[in-house]
Amino acid sequence: MTGKGEFDFIADRLAPLAAGFKGALGLKDDAALLSVRAGRELVVTADTLVEGRHFPQGTDPALVARKALRANLSDIAAMAARPIAYMTSIVWPTDASDALRNGFVDGLEMDQETFGVVLIGGDTTSADGPWTIAITAFGEVPASKALTRSGARPGDKLVVTGTIGDACLGLKVAQGAYKPDAGDRGYLLDRLNLPQPRLNLAEALQAHAHAAIDISDGLIADSHHLAKASGLALTLDLDAMPLSDAARRWLDNQDDSTASRLAMASFGDDYELACAVPEARVDTFVAELAKADVPAAVLGGFATGSRLTVLADGQQIDPGAGGFTHF
Amino acid sequence: MTGKGEFDFIADRLAPLAAGFKGALGLKDDAALLSVRAGRELVVTADTLVEGRHFPQGTDPALVARKALRANLSDIAAMAARPIAYMTSIVWPTDASDALRNGFVDGLEMDQETFGVVLIGGDTTSADGPWTIAITAFGEVPASKALTRSGARPGDKLVVTGTIGDACLGLKVAQGAYKPDAGDRGYLLDRLNLPQPRLNLAEALQAHAHAAIDISDGLIADSHHLAKASGLALTLDLDAMPLSDAARRWLDNQDDSTASRLAMASFGDDYELACAVPEARVDTFVAELAKADVPAAVLGGFATGSRLTVLADGQQIDPGAGGFTHF
Repeated sequence: MTGKGEFDFIADRLAPLAAGFKGALGLKDDAALLSVRAGRELVVTADTLVEGRHFPQGTDPALVARKALRANLSDIAAMAARPIAYMTSIVWPTDASDALRNGFVDGLEMDQETFGVVLIGGDTTSADGPWTIAITAFGEVPASKALTRSGARPGDKLVVTGTIGDACLGLKVAQGAYKPDAGDRGYLLDRLNLPQPRLNLAEALQAHAHAAIDISDGLIADSHHLAKASGLALTLDLDAMPLSDAARRWLDNQDDSTASRLAMASFGDDYELACAVPEARVDTFVAELAKADVPAAVLGGFATGSRLTVLADGQQIDPGAGGFTHF
Repeated sequence: MTGKGEFDFIADRLAPLAAGFKGALGLKDDAALLSVRAGRELVVTADTLVEGRHFPQGTDPALVARKALRANLSDIAAMAARPIAYMTSIVWPTDASDALRNGFVDGLEMDQETFGVVLIGGDTTSADGPWTIAITAFGEVPASKALTRSGARPGDKLVVTGTIGDACLGLKVAQGAYKPDAGDRGYLLDRLNLPQPRLNLAEALQAHAHAAIDISDGLIADSHHLAKASGLALTLDLDAMPLSDAARRWLDNQDDSTASRLAMASFGDDYELACAVPEARVDTFVAELAKADVPAAVLGGFATGSRLTVLADGQQIDPGAGGFTHF
């Protein structure tokens, strides 16, 4: 799949990202080797980003790399697993500049250290089309301890980490539709561009949660995914939605509080976790998250049935399209 | 990464391909779980195909699916591993027809049974660009038994499976540049479109070979990859190149035998294996391959140094661009 220029790029720029990981074989082979310790399972996830579809043309390529990697690591976090390694399959546009290529690798390099992952393989090619980045990430979890979407049980509470809606507002800032002060501007853009996969919660999740999902499609859509996969009804109270100070300041200036909360709950890219936790464990779970410096809030609960009930400003509302706003 | 239509497509068409594999979680989660048996390592490989670049627009989508999957399985075969599962990350063109989508899934379905693999996850999206298919495949190999490119030793012979050049001629047929009788036409097109990953040779490779690579870039280029990765010189005799009856008939009608042999040895997509085998083991290795109905031929050997020597019609020739003809 690779032409001459790609070989050089792999050897000069990508191979250093594989240094020290024996099974990566220096990126000189067509495949990589992964060992999984006894009593562990491998978690595998893939996500693809396409320029013009998932990020605007002209986005800093280092940010593209970091967000692509973090989106995958977030899926590993939701399974209560520990990340190990990743592969990249890249289709460069035929006119890709060295700055684009090098910026992308710089971004991977920055985040590898932060998250303790190593590049172990992949594929690069170029084509007459948009820049496309497919990442496959690998994690490890004690056998039978992985959380899935389908484990929620009636009576479980819906617990959400961090704050919701910042990425939604970050996009408004990026598009020039919202112009807060520099502090909020920086904060909201970072929340959009550099999500923080919740990787330090694996033990608390394994110990206390029944199910989890990362919020990439939107709070409502992803919480609903949990309920549907578990065959349960869900009540979700957007008044309990945890907000950052920056989001609170935005919300305080909106005329329609309900529509504003719904917008924040319908946009993806927060990369927080939505978890189903048995009621008796909620306090312990939230306390353990607090020890890891991760705030958490209870937004509702699961019950027998199949209905999705969304509340805002004390009223039941129609969630509408839910979480598909960017498609 | 998925809109409403994609959820339906995953549930209706892709999820059945994951049936029976517990860790695929019915394709309802963002990640999959893979168990690796004690004493085994996981082999992971990724390859991407882009419409208009790696296959012509209008190619039967089932053939695209099968070739994409087989290209990945061929990488697993070259490592002497056994395939287990695969993931697909697909970017559909925004105007993708149902026939394209369904044809693609039909192709995967046909080949899953043949090769004993199961779809365990991935990602689908659509974008304003060419159809792009990234496949990641997983295999299993006894720990420390995987073959890599870098294991060849001085004195090893270069052993090649099957026949070389058929895919090159298949492309000439597809493009209308070569018009043999119907029998050869069908045979050569099949060799181009439906490569046969050499998956039934894992035990013979583990027992007898020092290194292996699959021939996807071309006989010369890939054999040279083996030599370079192993830090060795290689002599490669194109007169010993194994040819199918169809390729022999084509060659007999060419004016320039050397140029014709070079063309066949410089084109990729044969998906045969080039192996480095110690001289004392060659006869046993070839005999074991014969038992598996796989012909094999000795085309040259490795020595200390770094030189690539290519012979054709008894003369040393300049291999030129080697294996990059389709880039």
